[in-house]
Order: sequence, then C-alpha cells, then structure tokens
Amino acid sequence: MSWEDNVRRTVPYTPGEQPKISNIIKLNTNENPYPPSPSVAKVLSRMDAGELRKYPDPAAQRLTDALSAHFGVPADQIFVGVGSDDVLAMSFLTFFNSGKKIFFPDITYSFYDVWADVFRIPYETKPLDENFHIRPEDYFGENGGIVFPNPNAPTGDYLPAEEVENIIARNPESVVIVDEAYIDFGGRSVLPLIHKYENLLVVQTFSKSHSMAGMRIGYAFGSRKLIGYLNDVKYSFNSYTLNAPSILAGEAAIEDEDYFEDCCCRIVATRERTKKALRELGFVFADSKANFIFVRHPQLDAGQLFQDLRKANIIVRYFPKARIDQYLRITIGTDEQMQVLLDFLKDYVRKHV
Amino acid sequence: MSWEDNVRRTVPYTPGEQPKISNIIKLNTNENPYPPSPSVAKVLSRMDAGELRKYPDPAAQRLTDALSAHFGVPADQIFVGVGSDDVLAMSFLTFFNSGKKIFFPDITYSFYDVWADVFRIPYETKPLDENFHIRPEDYFGENGGIVFPNPNAPTGDYLPAEEVENIIARNPESVVIVDEAYIDFGGRSVLPLIHKYENLLVVQTFSKSHSMAGMRIGYAFGSRKLIGYLNDVKYSFNSYTLNAPSILAGEAAIEDEDYFEDCCCRIVATRERTKKALRELGFVFADSKANFIFVRHPQLDAGQLFQDLRKANIIVRYFPKARIDQYLRITIGTDEQMQVLLDFLKDYVRKHV
Repeated sequence: MSWEDNVRRTVPYTPGEQPKISNIIKLNTNENPYPPSPSVAKVLSRMDAGELRKYPDPAAQRLTDALSAHFGVPADQIFVGVGSDDVLAMSFLTFFNSGKKIFFPDITYSFYDVWADVFRIPYETKPLDENFHIRPEDYFGENGGIVFPNPNAPTGDYLPAEEVENIIARNPESVVIVDEAYIDFGGRSVLPLIHKYENLLVVQTFSKSHSMAGMRIGYAFGSRKLIGYLNDVKYSFNSYTLNAPSILAGEAAIEDEDYFEDCCCRIVATRERTKKALRELGFVFADSKANFIFVRHPQLDAGQLFQDLRKANIIVRYFPKARIDQYLRITIGTDEQMQVLLDFLKDYVRKHV
Repeated sequence: MSWEDNVRRTVPYTPGEQPKISNIIKLNTNENPYPPSPSVAKVLSRMDAGELRKYPDPAAQRLTDALSAHFGVPADQIFVGVGSDDVLAMSFLTFFNSGKKIFFPDITYSFYDVWADVFRIPYETKPLDENFHIRPEDYFGENGGIVFPNPNAPTGDYLPAEEVENIIARNPESVVIVDEAYIDFGGRSVLPLIHKYENLLVVQTFSKSHSMAGMRIGYAFGSRKLIGYLNDVKYSFNSYTLNAPSILAGEAAIEDEDYFEDCCCRIVATRERTKKALRELGFVFADSKANFIFVRHPQLDAGQLFQDLRKANIIVRYFPKARIDQYLRITIGTDEQMQVLLDFLKDYVRKHV
C-alpha cells in the first residue's frame, strides 16, 4: 500500500501550443487577432493596486450586473468562472451525477472526455454524420446529460437553433449544456430558451469574441434553479474564482458593445474572404460559423502540411485523431495574416498538387 | 425522474463578509492591512492590455520560476492555482480517493469539510486539546489522507516543525497536506521536508503575507511525483487557471523580498502589541503565530460583542459553532486600526465587566 494507490489518475487535455517566439503567425488556438476594447486598457491602468490586498467580490457582482444589462437576463441567472473551461468543469461536476452515460459528439471539443474521465462520468460519443453535422435524433435516448458546442469545434459547423431546441425539449430529465464559445461569429444563441427550459445551460466566454483569452472569464446562463446549484458547487470549491482585474476588465469589455460588434464583423468578413480563397486552391470544408475553418485538401497530407506550415512560422492546429487526421483547423487572423497564409498555400499547392 | 435528481447537492463554504461601505475597520478576513509591493503596481500599469487577446502561459512559468528562485525549490516541484483554495480543492480531488476517512482537526479552516462533502470524501475530525493544540498522535491511525493548517485557523496555534514531521513520518500511505497560509507571520515552514517525504504537500498563498487576496494566487510544494499528479488533474480541469495579470503580479511580489520581510515584521510587531493590550483588558487566547488572534473574554458574550463591534463599524469574525462560540477571530490591521479597536474594547470592558 502506498499513497500513490489513492491518487486520481487522469490523462489531461493538451492545449494548443503557446510558443514563446514572436515572429510567428499564430492561428492555432482560436484567439482573436484584435486587442480587447480600449476601455479594458483604461480600467486596468487606472486600477488601484493597493486594493488588491482585499479579497475580490466573491459574486463578481459588477461583472454579473454588466452581463445582465447587456443580455437582458437577471443577474441571478448568470454564473461566472475562470474561462468557459472552469464553467464547464464545474457544470460537469454539478449536473452529471446520474451514473448514466452522458452524450457528446465524437468529433468535438476534446476537453469533454477529459472532464468525464476526471470526474468518473460514463459517456458515449455520437458520431457526426459524413458532413460533420450533429444528428439531433442521436441525442433522444436515455442519458445522464448532454453537452455540445454550437458552432461545433473543431468543425465550425452550426446547428440551427430549432434543432438545438429539439434536443433540449426531448431531454427534460437531463441537463443540456450548449457550449456557445463561438456563437458571436454568425450563429444565433439559444439564450432565450433558458426561460422556457429549466434544464438548459448556455455557456459563453470572453476568450474569443471579446479578445480576452489572457484574462480567463467565462459565463453561463440558466434557470435560477440551475444557476443556484452551480453556484453551490462553485462556492464549495473556491469562494473567489475571478480576481479583481478580471471583474473590472470583463465589465469594461461587455459595456463596449460597438467595439465588440465591429471586431466580430471584421473577423466574419475575413473568414468569408478566406473561405473563398481556400476553395479556389482546392481546399474543402464544412461551412464555418466560428472564428476558424476546418479544412482538408484532397491531394495533400494534412500532417505534412501542418509541419511545413510550422517551418514557415505559421502555426495552425492539427489533431492526429480518427476521422479528422486529414484536416487542419485554421484560426481566422487579421487580413494581413491570412494573406501570408494564403500566399504560402498558393505556392505550396502549385508545387505539391 | 427529473434533471434535479442528478444534481450534486452541497452546502457551500461561507466566506467572511466583504462589505461595500468604506468607513469600516475590516478585521474579519485576515487580509493584509498593507498594499502589495510597489513593483506590483508598476508591472500592472505597464502591462500591455493588447496581449490579453492571447491565452496566458498554462504553466505560469514566469511565476513558477520566481517561486523557484525565491524558495530554492526546482520549478517542477511547484504547483500554482487560483488562491490556495483552488490548490487545496484540486489536492482533495487528486489525493483523497482511498474511500477511507481523511483526518483534520475539529476546529480548523471550515472549508475542509466542504471540500470533503463536495467530492464525497469520508472524513473524521480530531478534537484539538483543551488548549486548542493539535495532538499529533491523533493522526497516527489508518486514514485516507491528512490536512491541517499550520498555524491553525482560526486559533492561530502553531505546531512545531518536529511535531508536523512526526505526523508525516507516521503516514507513508497517505498524502499529508500542510496548509501554511499563515506561516510567514512567525512559524517555520516544513518546506525542506518535501525532499525527505514524497507524500508531503506544503500549500502557501499570496493572499495574506503578500497582500494580494484580490489577485487569487496560491502555490504548493511537493515531490516531483506529487506535483506531477496534481498538474495532471489541474490540466484535466482547466488548462489556464492563472490569468496574465496574476502571473505578472505574483512574479513581481515574490521578487521584492525586502518589502515582504518588512511587511511581515510590522504585522508581527502589531500583533504582539495587540496581544499585550488585550491581555490587560482581560481577554484570553492561545498564543498566535498568524496574522490574527482568536480571543475570548471570560465575562463577555462573544456573539454580543461581535454585534456591538459591528455597530461601531469594526468587523471581526465570529463562528457560531461548538467549542468556539465564545471566541472572536481578530485580524491584525495597522497600528492605527488596532488602536481604534482597543479603545473601543477598553470602554466596552469598563462598561460591561
């Protein structure tokens, strides 16, 4: 008998590389190419560092109130955490305790099976169809909970709100988590449905559309009951999760609606231009409503292309996994960054195809 | 059957009040009365908000390296988290999986039983002796893990390093967590013992002695193996727990050793003066090596005194629990703050005793 016998063994999630060199084009972690709202810089530079000696507000009320005003949802139906990963981890822990299998797609955010494993939650993956669409009817069977991103990652495929509602409506006995990390790039949120279904949790984040991956702020909407249970578990884990700068920066970012809209529009415009150019080079992909495109080229090996891009200081994301090992996930950067990528690919296709 | 049947029900920890009014003397949450090192303000004001668009370093390497240099411990034997609460929560989840009861004192940090409950870990509390000392021999029986603060909270009682080692040495089959949140105010850390016992985890924090409760940074030392397992669980929960400002501020604070030493010395000096004055007023207390004193007055009702202090805009902490409901925990503030408290108490004792 050793202390090691009682350790929770787990195989962690592998995040995308965060290289320390600076002369690279980083299109591998779906970060926003634009800085956060100028008002974020302003509140942070004005912050009184002396106040850091005190604990932050455990309820992060200023941030929750700002989210409440922006989304028109009462503050007690909003949960906040250290990025949407923290929100999702807490949600798995809180809601998926039936002992029954939870369902999520086979090709999806690769943290879901990690959370299921670390909390010893049984799960079953539901294969996307051959076009990488979620089949709603796969989620109608008996289950211990449901979670999927919309748009899905890494595919970018968007499930229309009516089909999402269909899944929720058919599962009154489970909590359904819709992970809307990428919803601001062209999808329609199912947020209004929280008033209709008390078992729906809608999760969003400041990491992508609000350009604040470095600040770690995620949030979720749900019925009062659902959010109450989630907060009970959160306050049983760590009273103060969001630090003082996060609360201030989050509030500032959410209030600058014009900047946010403009930023999302620019990314969507760049994405559509990039799609067109990639199509002309022979790449194929499901339509994406996210800030990335999941592409393959019928005549190119994705693993090789990934390596060759890396050598040219362009980093994209490659998943050496079943069904998707001939795909690359390319984050939408600035127009200038995408042009460098496209110039490289044009040359590459000419040489290799 | 309803979705609610599968919810993890839990009774959360109640943190000390964070009042929103400003004209109060706040001696209730063991915050440091002094601001963090001036270099914290400097790095935060120089921080490039534009960089927040990117994810932070998941390993928080700059902070871990600064801790490594300061403590002379290799970086791969250091774990960091969102306050020591996050570090402790992750540790409970990682190490206490035997199904056997874990042990901790009956009077101690009131988050331990909350973590045990939320993770469904059985536990047994070990009564402090009549002087509120931990009895090491209570921790020699078969168990699934051991955790205690040193100095203990809310008592302030310090267990000499030799006795702590005795507990560790007798428990090779369990992980022993020594929660040293208050160690910098006069105790001697058992940190060197991590090189001798691979099952020892020593947890510390920036919230108290480094004046950064608002920044949420905790850390822990242990054997490579122990820290490796802890990181596996952390990376299975949330890849990026510390945000960019935390990493910078933590690094700056730890490097300013002179400021830190000076700050701790001032608090210890104020504590010793306060002890003397309280004794003269008839208060009794175990000797404290923390930044608080746990006091009672044989002729005064603690609950009443707590209320009366509150009316005078002085907030201390009162725990309406068995064995300690005639005690108040008073955080050490500035000399000026303690003088206001002592003046109030002098008058109060004159009137009520």
